[in-house]
Amino acid sequence: MRRIRLILEYDGSAYAGWQRQTNAVSVQQKLEEAIRRLTGEETLTVTGASRTDAGVHALGQNAHFDTSSRIPADKFSFALNTLLPEDIRVRQSSEVGERFHARFSASGKEYRYLFYSAPHSSALYRNLCAHVIYPLDTALMRAEAQSMLGRHDFAPFAASGSVVKDTVREIDFVSLNENPPFIEMRVHGNGFLYNMVRIIAGTLIDVGCGRINPDDIPGYIASCDRDRAGNTAPAKGLTLIGYEF
Amino acid sequence: MRRIRLILEYDGSAYAGWQRQTNAVSVQQKLEEAIRRLTGEETLTVTGASRTDAGVHALGQNAHFDTSSRIPADKFSFALNTLLPEDIRVRQSSEVGERFHARFSASGKEYRYLFYSAPHSSALYRNLCAHVIYPLDTALMRAEAQSMLGRHDFAPFAASGSVVKDTVREIDFVSLNENPPFIEMRVHGNGFLYNMVRIIAGTLIDVGCGRINPDDIPGYIASCDRDRAGNTAPAKGLTLIGYEF
Repeated sequence: MRRIRLILEYDGSAYAGWQRQTNAVSVQQKLEEAIRRLTGEETLTVTGASRTDAGVHALGQNAHFDTSSRIPADKFSFALNTLLPEDIRVRQSSEVGERFHARFSASGKEYRYLFYSAPHSSALYRNLCAHVIYPLDTALMRAEAQSMLGRHDFAPFAASGSVVKDTVREIDFVSLNENPPFIEMRVHGNGFLYNMVRIIAGTLIDVGCGRINPDDIPGYIASCDRDRAGNTAPAKGLTLIGYEF
Repeated sequence: MRRIRLILEYDGSAYAGWQRQTNAVSVQQKLEEAIRRLTGEETLTVTGASRTDAGVHALGQNAHFDTSSRIPADKFSFALNTLLPEDIRVRQSSEVGERFHARFSASGKEYRYLFYSAPHSSALYRNLCAHVIYPLDTALMRAEAQSMLGRHDFAPFAASGSVVKDTVREIDFVSLNENPPFIEMRVHGNGFLYNMVRIIAGTLIDVGCGRINPDDIPGYIASCDRDRAGNTAPAKGLTLIGYEF
């Protein structure tokens, strides 16, 4: 058996997220179907680095699978792309050691959140960004984003009902770049709680349009109370950029 | 009667182009249906600045129509956007004098052509750019693009069979910017022949991957022979950026 690592790009618009579902189409399902068809291994499964939500995109999702196939590792990308729908692409395929695990070996990952700040939504980029109709104070948002830096208990920035016990995470990079009408947030850390990036994005919107006083945010973080942070920003604005291993 | 000017954004992927067709859905049809529904004027028609082809996008298409409706001019955008599909948006609406004509008053326009240069196509941006699988020499392409500047007979860069007699056009700005894997061409001129921007884009691809010698291009322009310029690049890479009036 050989272990193959894939780097994947997908448009999440048509999918119920990464993870296999019983009654909805997922990226994992489409990928497993393509690999099974290619290798003839009917029980082959794929392990993804993250379970992206419905509507969330990826430019650098990672995954691995074990196969007896003798197809050269770098040829999997080309062969799979002929079997996959156009909204899922394998950007790269390579052979890795059996110690490599897409989920457990990752040491850091990066997300992008794209806001579209204008009176009307975008036709051309409608699936790639979240429309914000209110004027946004990006200087406030940038200062706010910087306050997320470092090691914190991000419990208020996790979806309610999430079961993870250790909610301490470290964000080591965050940036907010304007290219009107787009505002791009980039955030890099050692791990993220469920919905954490979307709640950070939603909090930045609330700060940017004056619904939340930025001075209160350190208090929200300290309070560990989900109800005090901002709304969860829409899935379609979020793109998983990539991982370090 | 008042004349209303619209600035429009659309994702051309689902449409047979701007112009009304008898047996395919066009942007003009969707827009006229929305305006007729809003104003109750059943024979109202819309005049567009350009007839974009099937699959071509617009960030700044212009159009006008005459109406007896008393809806405030700037409110048309908001009202129409509630009636239009999400892939067509009115960015701005305003009242203009009767001398304004979306097609005949325009003095210049700008297009963008987006190439995606990588071994695999893009999942996320698949409808916004043309995938080029060959490595491209962008320095050659940039020099080539510059040779298009100025006033020339662009007959070799018009679709075969086009019936326009005067094929002299002036390009006053052209740029090629790299943001790997994207290469963006911007071109501005006083007017363009049918398919001219896509044939320029196709010629740049041919130059960039070594299929055409850039030294030959001035000869192609001088020859007025369509068969000697490059291929027509795919519609989906082309976006109409905007106009001056």
